Amino acid sequence: MNTIGHLINGQIITEGERRQPVYNPSTGDTSREVILASKATVEDAIAAAQAAYPEWRATPPIKRARIMFRFKELLEQNADRICDMIGEEHGKIRHDAMGELQRGIENVEYACGAPELLKGEHSRNVGPNIDAWSEFQPLGVVAGITPFNFPAMVPLWMYPMALVCGNCFVLKPSERDPSSTLFIAQLLQEAGLPDGVMNVVNGDKEAVDTLLVDPRIQAVSFVGSTPIAEYIYSTASAHGKRCQALGGAKNHAIVMPDADMDNAVNQLLGAAFGSSGERCMALSVAVAVGDAAGDALVSKMAEAMQSLKVGAYCEASNDFGPVITRQHQEKVVGYINSAEEQGATIVVDGRNPQVAGYEDGFFVGGTLIDNVTPDMISYREEIFGPVLQVVRVNSMEDAMTLINDHEYGNGTCIFTRDGEAARYFTDHIQVGMVGINVPLPVPVAYHSFGGWKRSLFGDLHAYGPDSVRFYTRRKAITQRWPSAGVREGVEFSMPTMK
Amino acid sequence: MNTIGHLINGQIITEGERRQPVYNPSTGDTSREVILASKATVEDAIAAAQAAYPEWRATPPIKRARIMFRFKELLEQNADRICDMIGEEHGKIRHDAMGELQRGIENVEYACGAPELLKGEHSRNVGPNIDAWSEFQPLGVVAGITPFNFPAMVPLWMYPMALVCGNCFVLKPSERDPSSTLFIAQLLQEAGLPDGVMNVVNGDKEAVDTLLVDPRIQAVSFVGSTPIAEYIYSTASAHGKRCQALGGAKNHAIVMPDADMDNAVNQLLGAAFGSSGERCMALSVAVAVGDAAGDALVSKMAEAMQSLKVGAYCEASNDFGPVITRQHQEKVVGYINSAEEQGATIVVDGRNPQVAGYEDGFFVGGTLIDNVTPDMISYREEIFGPVLQVVRVNSMEDAMTLINDHEYGNGTCIFTRDGEAARYFTDHIQVGMVGINVPLPVPVAYHSFGGWKRSLFGDLHAYGPDSVRFYTRRKAITQRWPSAGVREGVEFSMPTMK
Amino acid sequence: MNTIGHLINGQIITEGERRQPVYNPSTGDTSREVILASKATVEDAIAAAQAAYPEWRATPPIKRARIMFRFKELLEQNADRICDMIGEEHGKIRHDAMGELQRGIENVEYACGAPELLKGEHSRNVGPNIDAWSEFQPLGVVAGITPFNFPAMVPLWMYPMALVCGNCFVLKPSERDPSSTLFIAQLLQEAGLPDGVMNVVNGDKEAVDTLLVDPRIQAVSFVGSTPIAEYIYSTASAHGKRCQALGGAKNHAIVMPDADMDNAVNQLLGAAFGSSGERCMALSVAVAVGDAAGDALVSKMAEAMQSLKVGAYCEASNDFGPVITRQHQEKVVGYINSAEEQGATIVVDGRNPQVAGYEDGFFVGGTLIDNVTPDMISYREEIFGPVLQVVRVNSMEDAMTLINDHEYGNGTCIFTRDGEAARYFTDHIQVGMVGINVPLPVPVAYHSFGGWKRSLFGDLHAYGPDSVRFYTRRKAITQRWPSAGVREGVEFSMPTMK
Amino acid sequence: MNTIGHLINGQIITEGERRQPVYNPSTGDTSREVILASKATVEDAIAAAQAAYPEWRATPPIKRARIMFRFKELLEQNADRICDMIGEEHGKIRHDAMGELQRGIENVEYACGAPELLKGEHSRNVGPNIDAWSEFQPLGVVAGITPFNFPAMVPLWMYPMALVCGNCFVLKPSERDPSSTLFIAQLLQEAGLPDGVMNVVNGDKEAVDTLLVDPRIQAVSFVGSTPIAEYIYSTASAHGKRCQALGGAKNHAIVMPDADMDNAVNQLLGAAFGSSGERCMALSVAVAVGDAAGDALVSKMAEAMQSLKVGAYCEASNDFGPVITRQHQEKVVGYINSAEEQGATIVVDGRNPQVAGYEDGFFVGGTLIDNVTPDMISYREEIFGPVLQVVRVNSMEDAMTLINDHEYGNGTCIFTRDGEAARYFTDHIQVGMVGINVPLPVPVAYHSFGGWKRSLFGDLHAYGPDSVRFYTRRKAITQRWPSAGVREGVEFSMPTMK
Repeated sequence: MNTIGHLINGQIITEGERRQPVYNPSTGDTSREVILASKATVEDAIAAAQAAYPEWRATPPIKRARIMFRFKELLEQNADRICDMIGEEHGKIRHDAMGELQRGIENVEYACGAPELLKGEHSRNVGPNIDAWSEFQPLGVVAGITPFNFPAMVPLWMYPMALVCGNCFVLKPSERDPSSTLFIAQLLQEAGLPDGVMNVVNGDKEAVDTLLVDPRIQAVSFVGSTPIAEYIYSTASAHGKRCQALGGAKNHAIVMPDADMDNAVNQLLGAAFGSSGERCMALSVAVAVGDAAGDALVSKMAEAMQSLKVGAYCEASNDFGPVITRQHQEKVVGYINSAEEQGATIVVDGRNPQVAGYEDGFFVGGTLIDNVTPDMISYREEIFGPVLQVVRVNSMEDAMTLINDHEYGNGTCIFTRDGEAARYFTDHIQVGMVGINVPLPVPVAYHSFGGWKRSLFGDLHAYGPDSVRFYTRRKAITQRWPSAGVREGVEFSMPTMK
Repeated sequence: MNTIGHLINGQIITEGERRQPVYNPSTGDTSREVILASKATVEDAIAAAQAAYPEWRATPPIKRARIMFRFKELLEQNADRICDMIGEEHGKIRHDAMGELQRGIENVEYACGAPELLKGEHSRNVGPNIDAWSEFQPLGVVAGITPFNFPAMVPLWMYPMALVCGNCFVLKPSERDPSSTLFIAQLLQEAGLPDGVMNVVNGDKEAVDTLLVDPRIQAVSFVGSTPIAEYIYSTASAHGKRCQALGGAKNHAIVMPDADMDNAVNQLLGAAFGSSGERCMALSVAVAVGDAAGDALVSKMAEAMQSLKVGAYCEASNDFGPVITRQHQEKVVGYINSAEEQGATIVVDGRNPQVAGYEDGFFVGGTLIDNVTPDMISYREEIFGPVLQVVRVNSMEDAMTLINDHEYGNGTCIFTRDGEAARYFTDHIQVGMVGINVPLPVPVAYHSFGGWKRSLFGDLHAYGPDSVRFYTRRKAITQRWPSAGVREGVEFSMPTMK
Repeated sequence: MNTIGHLINGQIITEGERRQPVYNPSTGDTSREVILASKATVEDAIAAAQAAYPEWRATPPIKRARIMFRFKELLEQNADRICDMIGEEHGKIRHDAMGELQRGIENVEYACGAPELLKGEHSRNVGPNIDAWSEFQPLGVVAGITPFNFPAMVPLWMYPMALVCGNCFVLKPSERDPSSTLFIAQLLQEAGLPDGVMNVVNGDKEAVDTLLVDPRIQAVSFVGSTPIAEYIYSTASAHGKRCQALGGAKNHAIVMPDADMDNAVNQLLGAAFGSSGERCMALSVAVAVGDAAGDALVSKMAEAMQSLKVGAYCEASNDFGPVITRQHQEKVVGYINSAEEQGATIVVDGRNPQVAGYEDGFFVGGTLIDNVTPDMISYREEIFGPVLQVVRVNSMEDAMTLINDHEYGNGTCIFTRDGEAARYFTDHIQVGMVGINVPLPVPVAYHSFGGWKRSLFGDLHAYGPDSVRFYTRRKAITQRWPSAGVREGVEFSMPTMK
Repeated sequence: MNTIGHLINGQIITEGERRQPVYNPSTGDTSREVILASKATVEDAIAAAQAAYPEWRATPPIKRARIMFRFKELLEQNADRICDMIGEEHGKIRHDAMGELQRGIENVEYACGAPELLKGEHSRNVGPNIDAWSEFQPLGVVAGITPFNFPAMVPLWMYPMALVCGNCFVLKPSERDPSSTLFIAQLLQEAGLPDGVMNVVNGDKEAVDTLLVDPRIQAVSFVGSTPIAEYIYSTASAHGKRCQALGGAKNHAIVMPDADMDNAVNQLLGAAFGSSGERCMALSVAVAVGDAAGDALVSKMAEAMQSLKVGAYCEASNDFGPVITRQHQEKVVGYINSAEEQGATIVVDGRNPQVAGYEDGFFVGGTLIDNVTPDMISYREEIFGPVLQVVRVNSMEDAMTLINDHEYGNGTCIFTRDGEAARYFTDHIQVGMVGINVPLPVPVAYHSFGGWKRSLFGDLHAYGPDSVRFYTRRKAITQRWPSAGVREGVEFSMPTMK
């Protein structure tokens, strides 16, 4: 049995009493186990980070950035190996894992711009001969807690920027698919990062709680479900830390009557079923405006779904893989059942997919449900599975009300050709990330990622420009020199001057 | 008895059962009382703000800014009246009140630049024919909770920026000196602000708690003491809000052997005793490096203090006035007593000041204490009175350790002529606002205000650039238009096109 | 005869031999004359500016900005008087003059944000213990040369920003309508601007050439016609100055088949005929895509033009006034004649307008010409009169080719509802200012104004963010302090330290 | 005989009639010759760039940036080979060539941040439902003309930023040491740059003039001597192009009485003699304030210079190498002679250096001249050789007057420990790049490089943030959509909608 440990102060630590199996969701097998860190182990990691901080903080930003340049090269060189690890433990198909990794690398690229991003603001003569400037100095030791669904990408949203800003980091990734995360962190050392600057501890609530209360941790970034995000945010805040906690989602696409329907269907296919819908930006609800649009959408989507292929991560021709666990598979099926029971129409049914050779994998097939209404459980909650639900409304205003009334406000999209409709939508929709004919509007790395309402707690979004401000403290300096000394000295040979 | 009410939806509300006297601390008299808002009254204010929000949000930023241009004019025209109100209820001398108001107006000036400050980031071609941009949209209804010591200035740190960003506001100012705050808010209406956009509720913990838990409040800005700041931050955060909570301070100045001593003493005089030391940026500890510097500092300071004049707010020749309440007067004296008991030297004793004609005023005279040590209560806690304590150390490193070890990290200063010493200090001191020969390094309005450590909870500082980000939500939009429709149409005369 | 002089060092100078009459173009009368400055007079102005520079440069930006706050108030208080002056000498109707002034005031509002706009960039630790920052320092004395068509607005594009950046200014406005320009400059003094910081010299080529070659002038901003712009740019550059020279225009609107035609016609009406078309942003060519669009456009426009009213500046019900001179009136009519001769269709003919009571005014009525082709003189050259020409094409691509092939690239517009068409247009059109359903896309004051191709010479645009960079010089500072001196001193009582 | 050709459209072109030998200045030998491009050849390069432009312009900035990421890797991998080429043709020692290359690579690193740097400004609601944004679009084909003294670095100041902004480039490097420049440009293709985007033409005035007048060239960046810079600037400007032309220098260091003298001497040694003084940032004049400082400086410098070693590029222990040509060697010696004749004191005489084995190399030894006065030719002109001149003055004010009166204003430095002196200096010195105890204050790549006065013509500096603005055109877009069409449609089933 292969054991996955922690990375603390440059060393892999595989000691620890509590362990948990890591599954291959495509087969249902388990050939690895992960160590769950104790409080003491997490504190070791924090101590290592704290010890590495003074020297790392004093390292010029351009030198910190150059480690990211090398890190990017190493990530590209090791892409195949990383994607294999992701596939084995998470189940996503190679092309999808490659996409994830690429999105992660883009954050490393952004971090390479640290010297520009860290510039402070300088004001000559705020008063007569008084100057003032603001700097963005690092915080110290900061922590990240990340989910199973993007074991490579989400950690890369956090620590590259945290590190180039001058902080040291303790990462607590998901214990369900920890291998790629740990491997990637080790590449940082190969890229030249000093020991202790980056640390990884695998674990469960014990590790999380240790990070949330330890006074040496200055800030916490979290991505996961909303109930946990809420717990993280209130607990970290109660301990005086800054915190950004990203939670769940229910992302709607409005399909307008003037939409390019073939394009919309094609886009939705990937956005709804890619990565088995286990994405916080998955497009899980399509809101058709008018019956004509609704009918066209459902019939074209049902047809397009005939060629969708669910299966094991290792076969490149598959479109998406299994969900993460047996329990989660059952939960997704439960949501489909409930929709059916509450009167929705199951147009394409993915509850019993046949994946030859992988009978014990945790598969759910692509599912299309029509005539969904806002009161249904399947509409109100996040399913996190390959299920696209269609709601039908009579006007764009109704469609927007649906979205604005929902608890979550992560992502959304409108399909239209009309400039006015698109503009009205972007202005009035209560959602943080908005697509115009882009169903998965994950901002590029040089913008920032964040939802509204109960999809994000905190004020600064993840990665991009906001992350600079999250991972630094503003220091404002005001400077006035006393009346001229050496400058106006007329007799420079006097012995009291050196 | 004059009654001070609330401003809700453009109306002054003077109903309410619970009332509290407002003192004139120069005389000890009370001729006004303030109404303490009930939960229902605060909710009325929130409802008014919520109702005014959609139209205010849709008002172009340049028009919002123009109300601030007019507000600035009105503040300048009404400066005398405002300063009288401040003097009567807070006790600060006219020149000091004028300084406070001016610092407040500077935030209004900054808010006039809203159209520039609110610019989002636009990226053409994040992918082929895909554009992305980020906007900074208002939050909705936001709240401010402010302290007694700057009844005009601290509210003006908050709502001008919150308003021009498109938010509506509910302010809960200090109930000890509420008149100027309320009067100023009414000027906003005269400047053209629509009813309901700005609301003021006077009150106590009931009002505060209502703001902290009401789901319609999106964000809370607070300035006050650290224990309350901590409560505000954890409570608001536990209710999912964004929050910035500024707390207490213990601001040290390091006096280096090469300092321009006369200048340093002159600067410290105002920084330690101005406004009776009731400023979160008051310079309350001088750390002398070397005995020569210490001796010179104490003797010159003692001499300079001979001309310091404490007295009633209405006499322009006074340097500073009373403290805010009888209890606070006793508390300050208690700190001086404790220092004496713990072995410090009372060089100048302000415990029994004689202010002819104002025998019942809450006065404490300027006090200088030498040989203070870090274990003394008077050193560890914030006194918030006209007391300057001198600590003596042997090296700059020791002086910095003192500062970095203290619980607070609001402001600090070094007196030196030496570029290297100043640079080392700004780099390594764990304090948010740093002065080089500037003992009260309050950042100008176009930088931002915030301490480190337990002087501020949250990630974004008050006013200036950080306030734009605090009072707005980032919305990231990604846009791609479908394959050309009208553009590539070859037959434009067909009847189906309008 | 009323004499209009210069403003030099705070004094109005009315001496000078060469004079020129100033007309009232609504009546053809002249009751004022303007003095044309000699080389020596211009050099006096430059010397005054040079003398005022050191103190103005040292004035903190916030104080410079506060003069702009007061200037804005004064402009608003004197708006009626200013608009009368503009009307009398330029001929534009009150509502139009008010619009011009308001656009000018917006640049003053922008200049009020100087402290924010002038922030430099600060980098801690560009190397170990080495810091670097860049400041934007003023240039010294800079000059502006402005056209007759916006005697209030165009100067206000230049000097408010130049002044708050710390420069002193010499303005050479149009000698055809100099009164409002001079009056406005005098308000600056009332607002508190020190003498000599702002100077106005009226004049002709002699004044211009003096400014272009005097070595004390650091930069020249120009707005006028392209041949002069080209001369200004090459001459100023040959004398080592920085220069931005804005020239002529031929602004096209594409009317797409899906346009909201009533809206388009309504918009075009103001954009083509407002201010008699004497605007560098006037929309003078409408390109109809497809015959249906062309027919609808021409018939609706002809109908809408029936209510257009040309007449004297002083009657509020008029839509637009006379052109600037008799010669210009003849030139405009000549262009209409040439179009007719070259085969175009004069749909609405404004060549002989009847303006009762103003028979000697320089009027041209609103003119609509259809079937214009790119080879016609009236198409190739800038008419600067109330003439709208319609060109018909078969595709959007053809319409864009027309625009991209034209010598000028100032402004342009597309009327469409289609997001894709608009996006393609903004991306590929070779024009500096682009409107989507906005026919007069003059950027707001917080963006910058500038055309492409032969409509602008230089790299930085007028007003807005670009003007900060144009009116300042970057200074890059790199700082390292030698090994610690005073900081690490161990014996601080030695007598050699003060 | 090895022939060095051009790089046009991805091909090395070695045809051409006019050729010129390329020397090895360490030996005086020549084993290569460079082809001097005819007008037709330069026009081929421009045509290739023009043809490549549409596709390169449409390539997303992030993809353009990724070519720079790969280019950086290739530069690092080929560093040894590049430095050999530089050494052979320019003569600089390996460690110095490495420094040059590293500084060049830093500009490539900066260019990797293109997606961030190219962000435009977006404003929602500049009016009701009207949005505006500004983009920074590429210019088209731009040109660079670069000097012999940094054959790798100076071109890298220009084209990486020009390219990532979306432009195509034609480089005319120095014909004296063309090999490294050409080799580096070829690495760009290996990095994935499409053919024609980057072109190199070797040549002389014919090539330069072709670039200056060809209408397809949109912008010209130049680095060289001031007379040529002036010619370039006025000629390019007269042809309507934007231009930045960097010229000569005479960089002074003020040595204050309180300077850390050992440090100052050590710093000056490298700054004065490194690269034989053939740097536009070479520190060639030391201004000593007070006789004590002057005496100490001269004696310590003379002593330190004893270990200075001049010699061939290929020996690592040498401090600096030969100058570029025999004529230049004679010119430098001529300046030393003239100083001697005009009364200065030759303290260390480098006129006849002995370099064993390299008797025909173009060597000048390190030379120190004391008692130089401002009227001497050697003071007024740029020597561009390993000569440090000392001027003695009595006050800092006198020292600054010297600097401010000099024709050039490229770089300068002050050696002091005093904060006030340093601050006064940075505020008032008329020089673009200022060092505090940093004698060679070349800004880091993320700030911008540029002198003042006759050291730079144009308004935007080289590389860094300014280069983004230089290599792009601002396009301002204002957008309003007509009254709602599809959004408010009530009957969506009508057949005319697709």
